[in-house]
Amino acid sequence: MRPDNDTFLKALLRQKCDYTPIWLMRQAGRYLSEYNATRAKAGSFMKLAQSPDLACEVTLQPVERFKLDAAILFSDILTIPDAMGLGLSFVAGEGPKFAKPVRSEEDVKVLHVPDIDQSLRYVTDAVRTIRKALHNRIPLIGFSGSPFTLACYMVEGGSSKDYRNLKTMMYTRPELLHRLLDVNAESVTAYLNAQIESGAQAVQIFDTWGGTLSEPSFKEFSLRYIEKIISGLHKTFDGEPVPVIVFTKGADQWLELIAHCGAQAVGLDWTSNLARARSRVADCVALQGNLDPMVLFGSEERIREEARRVIDDYGVVGHGGHVFNLGHGINQFTPPEAVEILVDEVHRYSRDFHR
Amino acid sequence: MRPDNDTFLKALLRQKCDYTPIWLMRQAGRYLSEYNATRAKAGSFMKLAQSPDLACEVTLQPVERFKLDAAILFSDILTIPDAMGLGLSFVAGEGPKFAKPVRSEEDVKVLHVPDIDQSLRYVTDAVRTIRKALHNRIPLIGFSGSPFTLACYMVEGGSSKDYRNLKTMMYTRPELLHRLLDVNAESVTAYLNAQIESGAQAVQIFDTWGGTLSEPSFKEFSLRYIEKIISGLHKTFDGEPVPVIVFTKGADQWLELIAHCGAQAVGLDWTSNLARARSRVADCVALQGNLDPMVLFGSEERIREEARRVIDDYGVVGHGGHVFNLGHGINQFTPPEAVEILVDEVHRYSRDFHR
Repeated sequence: MRPDNDTFLKALLRQKCDYTPIWLMRQAGRYLSEYNATRAKAGSFMKLAQSPDLACEVTLQPVERFKLDAAILFSDILTIPDAMGLGLSFVAGEGPKFAKPVRSEEDVKVLHVPDIDQSLRYVTDAVRTIRKALHNRIPLIGFSGSPFTLACYMVEGGSSKDYRNLKTMMYTRPELLHRLLDVNAESVTAYLNAQIESGAQAVQIFDTWGGTLSEPSFKEFSLRYIEKIISGLHKTFDGEPVPVIVFTKGADQWLELIAHCGAQAVGLDWTSNLARARSRVADCVALQGNLDPMVLFGSEERIREEARRVIDDYGVVGHGGHVFNLGHGINQFTPPEAVEILVDEVHRYSRDFHR
Repeated sequence: MRPDNDTFLKALLRQKCDYTPIWLMRQAGRYLSEYNATRAKAGSFMKLAQSPDLACEVTLQPVERFKLDAAILFSDILTIPDAMGLGLSFVAGEGPKFAKPVRSEEDVKVLHVPDIDQSLRYVTDAVRTIRKALHNRIPLIGFSGSPFTLACYMVEGGSSKDYRNLKTMMYTRPELLHRLLDVNAESVTAYLNAQIESGAQAVQIFDTWGGTLSEPSFKEFSLRYIEKIISGLHKTFDGEPVPVIVFTKGADQWLELIAHCGAQAVGLDWTSNLARARSRVADCVALQGNLDPMVLFGSEERIREEARRVIDDYGVVGHGGHVFNLGHGINQFTPPEAVEILVDEVHRYSRDFHR
């Protein structure tokens, strides 16, 4: 059943809308005081993500505060490797850490696709809880990290500046990395399908680190596995199409490639020129993006001006599809009032582009 | 006077060469044990950079070890803001820090173009010392950070993940940032001209953080100032042309813009497709790059294969110009033997592309 406000889904499917829909990556996050309160109640980030009720609570917070056109499941991209038994924890100020990074042939061999129903039940439970709480007002987005992005964290054991361990594996033992990526791709497919079956009405694949590769490596180690996932996802559920968004940061140079991976929409960071991007994909996919998240630290007039620039860049929507978003997750120090201004300007100014 | 091996200069000027020249960003660095020995002798990174004799010693180390086609002045990109009195220091594991970051109107007002002869004499002295020690074997490259990249460090007070302070200034007080960039551009022009007068035979402008901007901001806050610098640089010195290389990381999407900034060559990181890049600039500039520095952690065969791929991508040189380089500074953990393999393969394999 379509949600009351299905503008976001229509934009992804390149159907006629009344205005340009907007949601923000990491919209349920630390820039909201109510999020911090719930997180404190949970005790830790992982406990927050693993409690369906609390995950539901924070998912709805930005949606209650702002007129956003979609909610996104509150979770972490590293739930899959955690479910594989790598031992995820979050060290304050250092980001995610895995107790058992994947480095050797032996480490790769013992990796298995996790049983979603068992070890990731908290995620599908959260999806169901959120869908109920949303009362079908707006659609819910499910998500996962891409196989390559998950591999980056799994091999490095956490964040990295240069992906030295991952790339050493790539340039010395490519077949080992492929085996790891195969397990990841199968896991992500099952995971996203489980989210869809539980009620996610669109899904986004975050290929956060694909942009650190050369073009041949991006095709071989990242895009190929994204294509594999998309070909294995439910195309429709409950009689409704389930659009897929692929977001690779820093990948403007590969836009044509990504546009043909089977996704309905491609996310762009703020370094892309949206007008050129649109002409390059020739409206064969919708585009999502692409405001610099730091614009939200600007004056009200500047926020409105930059929002209009993004909408102007995309142009008259016609047979295209544009979902307004930031080009990256919202910064934790963003003043919430800035989001209100942004949402207002996007909704107001974009109407003329949809007549 | 042209150096005995002027292949690098000829490639930048798109003149006929016998093979593709190669140098590596950060070629004098921590991956070399002899560098670490000299650095230990100096006591600190800044003392190393500020001693013309020791700076000369480390500049020559990679040139003695490998058959590189150019030497690059050993220095730091933050010498200019240090000379402006911002108090540069290096904290182990944290990178550069400024005691007095530039945040307010008052901070910007008191900034002045430093007297190069006085406060940056150690750099021009190093250039002269290195030129003598090189005995005209290969050319010496001088360099500077771009005005925007310097501003990033000056406003943030050090490294940053999101450039929140810089971008807050950009989106709230653009005129203030422009004033700062004006001072930086004038300083960089004087600094690079002083390096040229002291013997630098080519110069590179490192626009390391320009790629964190949106396209309109990149044009307004970075590229405009690079153009200003280039128009103020000595075109020739001692009867010889002095080519300029501009390297903006993560800027493939703006290649056409950068190619028309007045530089003779554009540096590309490893995410660019060199064949497409070349056709986009239609041989109006030389291109420099663009191997993933992490390839040097691969097997010998993989290093040779990836080096050949870059050369194949550029193609038969004809009226173009290609300088082989990494797409970023060499990683500190790189095995030096890998560099030897790379230089060998580039020199050997590229000959056929220059017939």
